[in-house]
Amino acid sequence: MRHLPFEDLGFAHVDHHRQIRRGFPEVIYCPGKTVEQIVKIFSALAEKGDNVLATRAEEDVFKALTRTKKFPNVRYEKSAKAIVLEQKEIKPSKTTIPIVTAGTADLPVAAEAKVTAEIMGQRTEIIPDVGVAGLHRLLGHMERLQNANVIIVIAGMEGALASVVGGLVSCPVIAVPTSIGTGASFGGISALLTMLNSCAAGVTVVNIDNGFSAGVAATLINKRIEQNNS
Amino acid sequence: MRHLPFEDLGFAHVDHHRQIRRGFPEVIYCPGKTVEQIVKIFSALAEKGDNVLATRAEEDVFKALTRTKKFPNVRYEKSAKAIVLEQKEIKPSKTTIPIVTAGTADLPVAAEAKVTAEIMGQRTEIIPDVGVAGLHRLLGHMERLQNANVIIVIAGMEGALASVVGGLVSCPVIAVPTSIGTGASFGGISALLTMLNSCAAGVTVVNIDNGFSAGVAATLINKRIEQNNS
Amino acid sequence: MRHLPFEDLGFAHVDHHRQIRRGFPEVIYCPGKTVEQIVKIFSALAEKGDNVLATRAEEDVFKALTRTKKFPNVRYEKSAKAIVLEQKEIKPSKTTIPIVTAGTADLPVAAEAKVTAEIMGQRTEIIPDVGVAGLHRLLGHMERLQNANVIIVIAGMEGALASVVGGLVSCPVIAVPTSIGTGASFGGISALLTMLNSCAAGVTVVNIDNGFSAGVAATLINKRIEQNNS
Amino acid sequence: MRHLPFEDLGFAHVDHHRQIRRGFPEVIYCPGKTVEQIVKIFSALAEKGDNVLATRAEEDVFKALTRTKKFPNVRYEKSAKAIVLEQKEIKPSKTTIPIVTAGTADLPVAAEAKVTAEIMGQRTEIIPDVGVAGLHRLLGHMERLQNANVIIVIAGMEGALASVVGGLVSCPVIAVPTSIGTGASFGGISALLTMLNSCAAGVTVVNIDNGFSAGVAATLINKRIEQNNS
Amino acid sequence: MRHLPFEDLGFAHVDHHRQIRRGFPEVIYCPGKTVEQIVKIFSALAEKGDNVLATRAEEDVFKALTRTKKFPNVRYEKSAKAIVLEQKEIKPSKTTIPIVTAGTADLPVAAEAKVTAEIMGQRTEIIPDVGVAGLHRLLGHMERLQNANVIIVIAGMEGALASVVGGLVSCPVIAVPTSIGTGASFGGISALLTMLNSCAAGVTVVNIDNGFSAGVAATLINKRIEQNNS
Amino acid sequence: MRHLPFEDLGFAHVDHHRQIRRGFPEVIYCPGKTVEQIVKIFSALAEKGDNVLATRAEEDVFKALTRTKKFPNVRYEKSAKAIVLEQKEIKPSKTTIPIVTAGTADLPVAAEAKVTAEIMGQRTEIIPDVGVAGLHRLLGHMERLQNANVIIVIAGMEGALASVVGGLVSCPVIAVPTSIGTGASFGGISALLTMLNSCAAGVTVVNIDNGFSAGVAATLINKRIEQNNS
Amino acid sequence: MRHLPFEDLGFAHVDHHRQIRRGFPEVIYCPGKTVEQIVKIFSALAEKGDNVLATRAEEDVFKALTRTKKFPNVRYEKSAKAIVLEQKEIKPSKTTIPIVTAGTADLPVAAEAKVTAEIMGQRTEIIPDVGVAGLHRLLGHMERLQNANVIIVIAGMEGALASVVGGLVSCPVIAVPTSIGTGASFGGISALLTMLNSCAAGVTVVNIDNGFSAGVAATLINKRIEQNNS
Amino acid sequence: MRHLPFEDLGFAHVDHHRQIRRGFPEVIYCPGKTVEQIVKIFSALAEKGDNVLATRAEEDVFKALTRTKKFPNVRYEKSAKAIVLEQKEIKPSKTTIPIVTAGTADLPVAAEAKVTAEIMGQRTEIIPDVGVAGLHRLLGHMERLQNANVIIVIAGMEGALASVVGGLVSCPVIAVPTSIGTGASFGGISALLTMLNSCAAGVTVVNIDNGFSAGVAATLINKRIEQNNS
Repeated sequence: MRHLPFEDLGFAHVDHHRQIRRGFPEVIYCPGKTVEQIVKIFSALAEKGDNVLATRAEEDVFKALTRTKKFPNVRYEKSAKAIVLEQKEIKPSKTTIPIVTAGTADLPVAAEAKVTAEIMGQRTEIIPDVGVAGLHRLLGHMERLQNANVIIVIAGMEGALASVVGGLVSCPVIAVPTSIGTGASFGGISALLTMLNSCAAGVTVVNIDNGFSAGVAATLINKRIEQNNS
Repeated sequence: MRHLPFEDLGFAHVDHHRQIRRGFPEVIYCPGKTVEQIVKIFSALAEKGDNVLATRAEEDVFKALTRTKKFPNVRYEKSAKAIVLEQKEIKPSKTTIPIVTAGTADLPVAAEAKVTAEIMGQRTEIIPDVGVAGLHRLLGHMERLQNANVIIVIAGMEGALASVVGGLVSCPVIAVPTSIGTGASFGGISALLTMLNSCAAGVTVVNIDNGFSAGVAATLINKRIEQNNS
Repeated sequence: MRHLPFEDLGFAHVDHHRQIRRGFPEVIYCPGKTVEQIVKIFSALAEKGDNVLATRAEEDVFKALTRTKKFPNVRYEKSAKAIVLEQKEIKPSKTTIPIVTAGTADLPVAAEAKVTAEIMGQRTEIIPDVGVAGLHRLLGHMERLQNANVIIVIAGMEGALASVVGGLVSCPVIAVPTSIGTGASFGGISALLTMLNSCAAGVTVVNIDNGFSAGVAATLINKRIEQNNS
Repeated sequence: MRHLPFEDLGFAHVDHHRQIRRGFPEVIYCPGKTVEQIVKIFSALAEKGDNVLATRAEEDVFKALTRTKKFPNVRYEKSAKAIVLEQKEIKPSKTTIPIVTAGTADLPVAAEAKVTAEIMGQRTEIIPDVGVAGLHRLLGHMERLQNANVIIVIAGMEGALASVVGGLVSCPVIAVPTSIGTGASFGGISALLTMLNSCAAGVTVVNIDNGFSAGVAATLINKRIEQNNS
Repeated sequence: MRHLPFEDLGFAHVDHHRQIRRGFPEVIYCPGKTVEQIVKIFSALAEKGDNVLATRAEEDVFKALTRTKKFPNVRYEKSAKAIVLEQKEIKPSKTTIPIVTAGTADLPVAAEAKVTAEIMGQRTEIIPDVGVAGLHRLLGHMERLQNANVIIVIAGMEGALASVVGGLVSCPVIAVPTSIGTGASFGGISALLTMLNSCAAGVTVVNIDNGFSAGVAATLINKRIEQNNS
Repeated sequence: MRHLPFEDLGFAHVDHHRQIRRGFPEVIYCPGKTVEQIVKIFSALAEKGDNVLATRAEEDVFKALTRTKKFPNVRYEKSAKAIVLEQKEIKPSKTTIPIVTAGTADLPVAAEAKVTAEIMGQRTEIIPDVGVAGLHRLLGHMERLQNANVIIVIAGMEGALASVVGGLVSCPVIAVPTSIGTGASFGGISALLTMLNSCAAGVTVVNIDNGFSAGVAATLINKRIEQNNS
Repeated sequence: MRHLPFEDLGFAHVDHHRQIRRGFPEVIYCPGKTVEQIVKIFSALAEKGDNVLATRAEEDVFKALTRTKKFPNVRYEKSAKAIVLEQKEIKPSKTTIPIVTAGTADLPVAAEAKVTAEIMGQRTEIIPDVGVAGLHRLLGHMERLQNANVIIVIAGMEGALASVVGGLVSCPVIAVPTSIGTGASFGGISALLTMLNSCAAGVTVVNIDNGFSAGVAATLINKRIEQNNS
Repeated sequence: MRHLPFEDLGFAHVDHHRQIRRGFPEVIYCPGKTVEQIVKIFSALAEKGDNVLATRAEEDVFKALTRTKKFPNVRYEKSAKAIVLEQKEIKPSKTTIPIVTAGTADLPVAAEAKVTAEIMGQRTEIIPDVGVAGLHRLLGHMERLQNANVIIVIAGMEGALASVVGGLVSCPVIAVPTSIGTGASFGGISALLTMLNSCAAGVTVVNIDNGFSAGVAATLINKRIEQNNS
């Protein structure tokens, strides 16, 4: 095991084995890294010919990458704060994962989930702003939800949407609490606790605002379903 | 103001003015008081001819009261853990307050709200176990909810029921988080935060498991509505 | 139920049924939404001829709305950080709700409660800076408080004002903790806990700094009282 | 939707539609319910001919059920604290879900996950006590883990096992923090935070000690994979 | 300094210099000590001829002390859970410290403060159950409060009494939060935060339920005032 | 009581009775107030001829006050962030209160305590940077500490200095936790808890960074001692 | 690595390689394990001829072990709640580690550290009850502390002792917070935060009440020092 | 003891005895100190001819020091945010301490540990970015880890690396949680709890992001080992 491939950049050990071991390449989580470090890691991953994703990236990182002129196809997904380089064809999934949000303000987290799933070849569709204060908005989309293999539910404030969706469908639900809210939402703790305590069994939870992890988890699940379906 | 009536028992200052000032008599909250103290306060209140309510009362308090033989009509509401003495006729309200619970385990809190409202002359009806994991159970009771002047919603675990009810009705909703749940429900904190962060405006919240305060608040509201209605 | 009206803007599902279902129109909570999104939701609501309220709005949102020249009557309530469009006559309530604050610094939250109540037709009056460090200031306003149908009490720091008011009146009291304070006030947690633990029964609580929700709840209560009073 | 079937027992609304809607019948979560209530709900579910599961059940509940003599096949899974009634044949799954625990003390949570999965027809195998203090114990089971469709990882104390497993496999991982530990483990908060912050993408989390929810979620995932596989 | 007197009992270093350095002898805080250890420390202190106080003592400790027959005058203050041995005359203070409690249930903490002050020669009087839900009860005692040199205020639940008293008097106020309350009182945290955030300047706070420390602090203050007064 | 004097500024009720009732005038706590509001309250207080103190004041407030040209003697204490107007002679106390700090970074809190005490006529001296990492620095000042009537101890990080000082002296000690520190100091919670849990009896605590309240409390204590001393 | 030795008991993977890899054998942490499981793990470890340690063991576990009659030399350290089997000679260290406690009530944690160190061959001496309320008690032991290679400091309540010791010596200090205390000590959180925030550099911390881990860490350090010393 | 040397700068008591007592000179922790104060303390330390270290220093502090022209050799370690003045030869240690980080973003904390160790004469080497999501990266460095006398492990997010390293080596491990992470990492609390609850005995912990304290503790340990080794 200690002989698996990685690349030592001095400040980072790039894990070139991750694609094989985990089914998706190493992704660059930007916070705390200098722009220079991110560019070097990005380059190391890109040189292998893989598609590259950098999350939580400020726009200046994207500008630094474009200035290198090494990545003509790199693009910046502003809402998701993600940098994407597609240089290898991505085969799209057959089925689509619904990404449901309670409010409009939850959309950046949905965008991160979406861009993550898509670079892994997973098609998604966002159903925004169907929170429980107006349940009929959610019920108007029931058919799409009941046909899904897996659903991502994203909500801040009281986070009740995950339980409501979870109680209506038979597929696994991945809940993402967001930091949207004020006062006693405590930066997402309220929604996180709501989702962890969901009375709808089968709801699993990722970290606050972590659209990336939800995107990975949902894609890993749906990939297995589609693989076995062929 | 410093000349309003109270009675000094040595260990308690019984507030005989509360009925006039607040619209309901002093209620005995039992935890932390000795049985002997409770019996004395109970007696002081009963001697004025008022109805008396003692909440969070263990059964041995009730037994001590019956042993005194001074209160032949005193009764113990086991589920609510409340002791009730009705010695003055209570005029029942015209309208009924629905007390909705998410689960069966929330019933003792509902019972405390019920017994509190009833000693203040407020009729109530409990709609139990209609949590969001099976929304159709709640929707089956919509008519009663939409006709109410005020609704009490009681829920533990993720506490999502308060938002869902709040989003469906036009009357005020009083939410009571309960300590039902395990792990990250943290003794009711999860439900409390959910309710405080409700996206359904107009939902107000009382302390965890505090059926008593919800009963008082709902009754104060409905009394004013009925008074003005005559 | 799934056939109730809403409008899909791509990033939001505007709930045009809320006025009918809940007694007040959908309100735009601005944080987390882009200026462009707010303008579009505002427009969608305004086109129906309803009055529109946007809360927690930065001034640049207001400027963007005025630049559209579609809403000549739109105004910005600076202290409340609220944008208001009145295009349909609002019938004022007969009675006035007192909004009591412990300190001067709590006034922005009071202003949010006031503007919210007023767009729902509810008259209010603010009684500022009557915190418990100088009780005589509060007692000087007792008559107005004892005549009210419902009272909003707003306090930061230790939040004790809610209990003191609650102990003096027979109407329902809605308590709003604020984030005013330093150190162990923990952004309003201190006042929130004080209010939740109020020994004055009948006090209900909304989220920290949530003048909006207090305004809605108080108005829903008073509306019912006045309706039944006619 | 409001016409879906449920049964009103007075203190509970039994959701007979759950099997159709969610793919598994209503399960009785015992804490907070009286023994009498549990027996009645159990009976109502059993009468439909379904298999019945009651979780977090003390042994006296099981004894009360056996005293009724209505359920000759009912059994008590002591370690899981679960009561199981199998009266309808359960078709076992083709593949097996590994349930990995960090320590021996995590086994009751694993047992709850196991009994839950099994009543849903899902085969499982427990791999106990392979925590990170002795990594070679985990690595000795790598083949089984890498062949799984989905893995449940259960750990208390620092909960690091979920990240380590998550970094080694390509299937989804469901992490269950347990309350095992002392001092700053804070009843499972330490493990919960570890799992939520996992650097291994694709790990999703359920509530502390919630083997039941992990069992449901894992089974829902694997069922879809196997269904599509046929 | 390292040559000051103490006595090494093997499991304790009894500080015989404390009376000189701090103005009161070492006091035995019982929790966590074995009965045998307490008896030995008690004996070591008693042999010096000083008065001895043991706090948070269960009754079996008192019984073990009486069984030794070495301390014929030892007594157990049940409400305070304190063991007291007076073998040296205590000269009573000229002035009395009021110990004010919000509720009857706060009395054990008041009793601990009282017994502590008294063994230091400080006279006290308890004014119980004058919480803010009925302010007139407090105002009925204003004269005694305004004549005091220092006041101890003891309150659980929302702890508002400390601010109210603090706003009415010109002497220092020592506030003791108690663990009385339920739900979001969190074992006294609510009252503690209230008191720390008091808008009435000059209120200082001790640990939850720590009547002992309040008794010491108030006595140290009053002693200095009386000393200088002679 | 409701007839005591206050002045209604529309946004504030200035408490002109505080000097009589509490022994010091109302002090302006600036955070959350607009500059305009502060200037008006300052003016209302100054017009009575009293000395005025505004705490937590940004420099622009001071500039606004000087621009009014109404207060030629107003000055800004930068380290304390306090605005001081002395227009009535202050009679200095006979004795001096030591204000001890654990580190240099705690000095702004000490400065706030100092300026507060001084406007009440209390002389103080700051003994800075004598934290427990170098105990000899503290012991070098023992004489001054042992001669004091009351001591203020200010410390961040682990806040241990309060216990060490408290264990060495016989006068009351007022402890002020500060927000100095990083990581698990949690903005002063670490020092706050340390001080609340002090094993040195007689230590009382004020809110984090609250030099003002410590200054008031210490002065109230020392005033009484000196008064009685004459 | 995956071929290192362990033994699969069905419910536990006993790590027989730990002695080689880590320098001490696997230790049995008892909470959460059944008595039967502990006996089997104990036996598996004992059969290898190693010395065996079981921590946090209730006395009934010890009794079950003695009933097996397989371990004639097994003994129960009551204060430490540890079961010890010495069947292989332990070579004592040359130097002694001081284990310093703030109070008598901290002694069980000291005992756990002591028994752990001793089974690893490390000599220790306990210096009890030298907390900062009476600093001279600590200073009386300075020589022993200054001669040590490493010191364990154990304290509850405010935990200040670790900083004071850390400021006086040049060797590494391992701090153990204990759960001794009440109210705002929050089961050891107060002492834990104090120690983590120690201004005395070089103090490292283990979990609350974790005498075992402190014993291991101190022994690992001292072993290296002595090894290199030969 | 009270006669040990220190220097009173008015705002600081510089501890010139620390080198003798603790084995390393006083270090300047910059936050909360003014630039002017830092320059003066720096000068006071430098004048004794010692090497000087200032931590958590913004670049403007360094510029102010260079402007004095008194310290031609002073340098700024940007990543560590440390100012270093070497004016006395530092004898390098024989052995090297590995500083292992979980991610690239943890490097500034590693840099602080490194610069701290080095000014104490301790050689270090950083092994970056070997977190548990790709275990083979860590295993590739096993030899260096197993040969170390002491290891510093730095990790944010879930902090699992400390347990994994701790389980693989026989030397003491010092764990540093970092504030790297988002959402429920709560500024490093997640990693802190993980490390405190490590199942790998012998892991001790310092405060969040406290590379300085880890550097001191590791150097104190290794110094003793090397001293005794000569």
